[in-house]
Amino acid sequence: MSDPRGVLLTLAYDGTGFSGWAQQRNQRTVEHELHRAIAAIDPNASPPRGCSRTDAGVHAEGQLAAFDATITRPARGWVKLLNNVLPEDISVRCAREVNVGYNPRFTSRQKRYRYWVLADKVPDALLRHRAWRVGYSLDMDRLVRESKSILGTHDFAAFRAVGDERAHTIRTITNVTVDPVDSTRRLWVFRIEGNSFLYNMVRILVGTLIDVARNNLPEGTIARALRDKDRSIAGQTAPAHGLTLEHIDVGLQPGEGSPWPE
Amino acid sequence: MSDPRGVLLTLAYDGTGFSGWAQQRNQRTVEHELHRAIAAIDPNASPPRGCSRTDAGVHAEGQLAAFDATITRPARGWVKLLNNVLPEDISVRCAREVNVGYNPRFTSRQKRYRYWVLADKVPDALLRHRAWRVGYSLDMDRLVRESKSILGTHDFAAFRAVGDERAHTIRTITNVTVDPVDSTRRLWVFRIEGNSFLYNMVRILVGTLIDVARNNLPEGTIARALRDKDRSIAGQTAPAHGLTLEHIDVGLQPGEGSPWPE
Repeated sequence: MSDPRGVLLTLAYDGTGFSGWAQQRNQRTVEHELHRAIAAIDPNASPPRGCSRTDAGVHAEGQLAAFDATITRPARGWVKLLNNVLPEDISVRCAREVNVGYNPRFTSRQKRYRYWVLADKVPDALLRHRAWRVGYSLDMDRLVRESKSILGTHDFAAFRAVGDERAHTIRTITNVTVDPVDSTRRLWVFRIEGNSFLYNMVRILVGTLIDVARNNLPEGTIARALRDKDRSIAGQTAPAHGLTLEHIDVGLQPGEGSPWPE
Repeated sequence: MSDPRGVLLTLAYDGTGFSGWAQQRNQRTVEHELHRAIAAIDPNASPPRGCSRTDAGVHAEGQLAAFDATITRPARGWVKLLNNVLPEDISVRCAREVNVGYNPRFTSRQKRYRYWVLADKVPDALLRHRAWRVGYSLDMDRLVRESKSILGTHDFAAFRAVGDERAHTIRTITNVTVDPVDSTRRLWVFRIEGNSFLYNMVRILVGTLIDVARNNLPEGTIARALRDKDRSIAGQTAPAHGLTLEHIDVGLQPGEGSPWPE
């Protein structure tokens, strides 16, 4: 056992089989599986410190988690070590050396989420765990107009789940895009990027946009909900399985560590 | 029980949980699950007649299967009826009226397959059941040049699995494309379209292209294998889970039946 070394992991996971990120008694969680895999290799390592507490069913391509290793090995060696031990619905994509005790939650500057909407009256088995299927007819031009209200710095108190008790609800959204994947305009990709997000904020934003697109809520709903800080003005919470945590920027340079372990 | 009516279904399925299309004792197959769902609604209906016998792990967006219904109901009503009963990894995308006894196997004129290759040294949990991950470095320009030899009418005897005993091995491939999904050039989509395919033909073609791209086989391998009709000249068989049966053209007009059941 040598001096501990901080390791920062980038993780991809398929959220379908997990009760979310955070450890819970008798539940299969990403945090628990990762902790177990780390401990199998390095029993004296610290528990992982995750950056985002993703909900049950939510996927990730760019989740971050740090831990302190006690075995002597370059950080990037952890990619192969952990992938050999982890279940196949979690992958370590990259491992970088960081300071001992480093916690990505405190350095997170920007997060990007992706949400897939399948505009289709009929189910599609291949997308059932990845896209929210909306069978109503959608006015996507209306939706794109409405999405502009999200951009900028606002009090997002209306766009968080009951139970989120954070005192500070002002957030800055720097980018919102809504695009069809191809010319059939059947599958749509939403991307929302900002400095930080309240609990269920992306899902309530997407749900409200869809309610506006199907003419269930009037245009201007998002601006009104922001102004009145009233959850009841906003729309439904889009389901978890359409959501993927795509990227977290913690201000590390790309050269630090390597995604190519071999 | 009224006079039987032919119904042609378009099916999507996630091949991950199936031992392929064709009914086998004590195996979970798509044919078996579909037969069971049809019988639950219409106990006197015929068994389904599938168009393509996809292998274990192979996905479909455009599989076709016909059966003869004995309940009085417009063909398109079967979309909702069956989706309510089928497991969530099979979806009926469309249902059309056809003649009693119609078998899409005998009218199939053109099939299109898609194959996903993930060029990445590190696993990706989100694509584990959809893309063949190839960790070697790939010369995709070389691969695209090699792929041109597939086009046209050839004797594909070298590109079929042992056990395929069909006497006639001449097939016409009308289209082959290889494209990156985005500018990262990490995920690649292969599409191969032709009038008919031998057993494992697409997978052996893709496997051979990858062997050429990683410089494990010389350029010109496909032309040589076609000429000599020798399976041992061609490359490996790409794994099943990267393959999706995208579309089958049976010569029906788009207006016949409707994908919008409501």
